[in-house]
Amino acid sequence: MNLLGLDPGSLRTGWGVVAHEGSSLRVLDVGVVRPGAAEPLPTRLATLHAEVTRIVALYAPEAVAIESVFHGPNTRALVVLGQARGAILAAAGARGVPVLELSPAEVKKSVTGRGAATKEQVAHMVGVLLGAQARTLLAAARLPADATDALAVAIAAAHRRTHPLARAGG
Amino acid sequence: MNLLGLDPGSLRTGWGVVAHEGSSLRVLDVGVVRPGAAEPLPTRLATLHAEVTRIVALYAPEAVAIESVFHGPNTRALVVLGQARGAILAAAGARGVPVLELSPAEVKKSVTGRGAATKEQVAHMVGVLLGAQARTLLAAARLPADATDALAVAIAAAHRRTHPLARAGG
Repeated sequence: MNLLGLDPGSLRTGWGVVAHEGSSLRVLDVGVVRPGAAEPLPTRLATLHAEVTRIVALYAPEAVAIESVFHGPNTRALVVLGQARGAILAAAGARGVPVLELSPAEVKKSVTGRGAATKEQVAHMVGVLLGAQARTLLAAARLPADATDALAVAIAAAHRRTHPLARAGG
Repeated sequence: MNLLGLDPGSLRTGWGVVAHEGSSLRVLDVGVVRPGAAEPLPTRLATLHAEVTRIVALYAPEAVAIESVFHGPNTRALVVLGQARGAILAAAGARGVPVLELSPAEVKKSVTGRGAATKEQVAHMVGVLLGAQARTLLAAARLPADATDALAVAIAAAHRRTHPLARAGG
């Protein structure tokens, strides 16, 4: 079964698809959607919607996984992030793909064993868990950090599916 | 030229299309998109995206007008509102329709002459400005309040187009 992890943003949205069978995980594809920063907002959101539609059609994920939002620096940032999420979720919804929301702490704990792990620890463990093929794909990607974050969310979603009782954050 | 006004929400999104020529305003259509409350969020956002796509294709508005967001009760509400806006804006962007953002005070002042007008004053003036046909359409609509708010935004956008210097809020 495939899971699509997303790290949404209106300027850069990281994405990564992992296949999981039992406890075995394999990365199928990663990338970063980068609508032109000079484009008006509706055009950027349309690009994001179209790209997620394409990725969902290509990999037929059983679910789309994103991090839940608990706070933001200000009203504007929360609305902007919400708008990127809305374009993504509308694309998933049109294909009937359910969305899993995971807290940032659940993602970190699931990938590193510690809910307060640093970004570097998360990136390291994404490479360890997904192996040499993932490291090659990420090294080839532009802006690999956004793609790495998306893969971390996909891995955490796969762990939740495989070990539903190990879900408590911390 | 047509303008599409929208009052976004993930459970109810009011919409209204007005045609303006010089200072003459006419309502073409109004409605409320109500994705089933029992549907999961991605499905509701997909419905919203599909409906706005349909309305934009039907009325070919020169712009989509929505109110800007300055505050919300909490993080969750801002993200939820942002998500509804994202689904709407992605639909407008896919057709190359620009989006006008108007402050709530600009909409109220444009429609009633007073930036701090009540919802009742706004609703009254929408009926006065758009005439008997609008009142008939609104009376026939389910949830006419959401459609009225959307028409107010469309009227304010038309006023900004017609009287660009009368734009100062207050």
